[in-house]
Amino acid sequence: MSERKTVWTAALVVIGDEILSGRTQDRNIAQLARWLNVQGIRLEEVRVVPDRQERIVKAVNVLRAAHDYLFTTGGIGPTHDDITVDAIAAALGTSVVVHPDARAALETYYATRGGINEGRLRMARVPEGADLIPNRMSGAPGIRIGNLFLLAGVPHITAGMLDALTGTLEGGRPLVSVTIGAMAPESEVADLLREAELTHAGVAVGSYPFFRDGRVGANFVVRSEDMTEAQACADLLASSLESAGYPAVPGGI
Amino acid sequence: MSERKTVWTAALVVIGDEILSGRTQDRNIAQLARWLNVQGIRLEEVRVVPDRQERIVKAVNVLRAAHDYLFTTGGIGPTHDDITVDAIAAALGTSVVVHPDARAALETYYATRGGINEGRLRMARVPEGADLIPNRMSGAPGIRIGNLFLLAGVPHITAGMLDALTGTLEGGRPLVSVTIGAMAPESEVADLLREAELTHAGVAVGSYPFFRDGRVGANFVVRSEDMTEAQACADLLASSLESAGYPAVPGGI
Repeated sequence: MSERKTVWTAALVVIGDEILSGRTQDRNIAQLARWLNVQGIRLEEVRVVPDRQERIVKAVNVLRAAHDYLFTTGGIGPTHDDITVDAIAAALGTSVVVHPDARAALETYYATRGGINEGRLRMARVPEGADLIPNRMSGAPGIRIGNLFLLAGVPHITAGMLDALTGTLEGGRPLVSVTIGAMAPESEVADLLREAELTHAGVAVGSYPFFRDGRVGANFVVRSEDMTEAQACADLLASSLESAGYPAVPGGI
Repeated sequence: MSERKTVWTAALVVIGDEILSGRTQDRNIAQLARWLNVQGIRLEEVRVVPDRQERIVKAVNVLRAAHDYLFTTGGIGPTHDDITVDAIAAALGTSVVVHPDARAALETYYATRGGINEGRLRMARVPEGADLIPNRMSGAPGIRIGNLFLLAGVPHITAGMLDALTGTLEGGRPLVSVTIGAMAPESEVADLLREAELTHAGVAVGSYPFFRDGRVGANFVVRSEDMTEAQACADLLASSLESAGYPAVPGGI
């Protein structure tokens, strides 16, 4: 009997000089991570690379072989530095073609916005054999080819494309989490965290300290694919925090 | 005559399940990027990896060989999932020792905060041969060893460590940028951007569209190590935008 696959993983390549120069604060790593959790897929690695074809090709080829799914964000717009489609085609050893449905969508979208032009038509280009990912926010679609998903860089457009993909990717059990907070310096309760984690299989406990109103505290996040285990681990941690003199706040502080 | 080195590059490994799970929005990529620009060092690649030693070791060993400097953020706190020091020591093939100055700093810091304990003492551990990076925000220092810089994950503590490093790393000319904005759809001015970039050596033009008050526009960022070239390119772009019917706004919109 073959073993049933239980863990699906994904990686993300963030493409863009604007992220590496600090001009733009990335929001797609966290956005994609949270969306993947709900699909039962784990984000395992992220690489941020510049707008240079050889760097994109290298990251894409390493990561698409290592994971079930590979996402990219950025570089699919109309300007000269938008080279994601060409880089992906190079990585796959395929050519770039104009997708008729993308062209039609762009012609419709720009009909009342000054009409189609060369720059806008760039956004209808896809690696040969690709399907489109609908984009309700603007005319330009995302692109799916094999296990690759090419998404926009602008976060609210990325969000729309993820919406369109919801429920279409095979995954495992969603990752769930239980959070409890305490006005405890994490350096005083490190042993309790380790114990709680060790006594529950498949559970990871994260510790997120904060400093507020002149006092230190932390939120402790218990993550698991099994809600019962996560809750049991959180309950144990809450009672050991209480015993150590730190009242636990369900849901976090 | 040997060629004078003009370009210094850096990479960053962001260490932490909390980033890959979407629990925490990373802010250190942008923060480090902007700080490096001022030091005349280019951030060339970022990898986000989970709290797993073999994954940290692999990323660190690839990137420290490929760049002048390698930074890490995260995983240097007191809890069981803080494994950065052990992973870096493994990557370097060295052992982990308690740094006497770090221990002294922690003892002083915690003297009025409940005293030192095993978890807190973890933060005095460093790869053998490492120096400390001062941290004015809390007792735990950052760590420097060779071309590696191990920084905190909490952004305001990371910021303090970067402050302490300001001006101590050899770099080239700072990257400067000139921004101009226009209420122009980037898909209508893509040609102007490409032309402006091509006519100025060593200049990169980025385009950052926005949608505001029912209208689309974009900011155009001209980056270069040469302020004169950047300004000349921006001036050309501004005048070609004006000719196309889009008044240019210096400094961006």
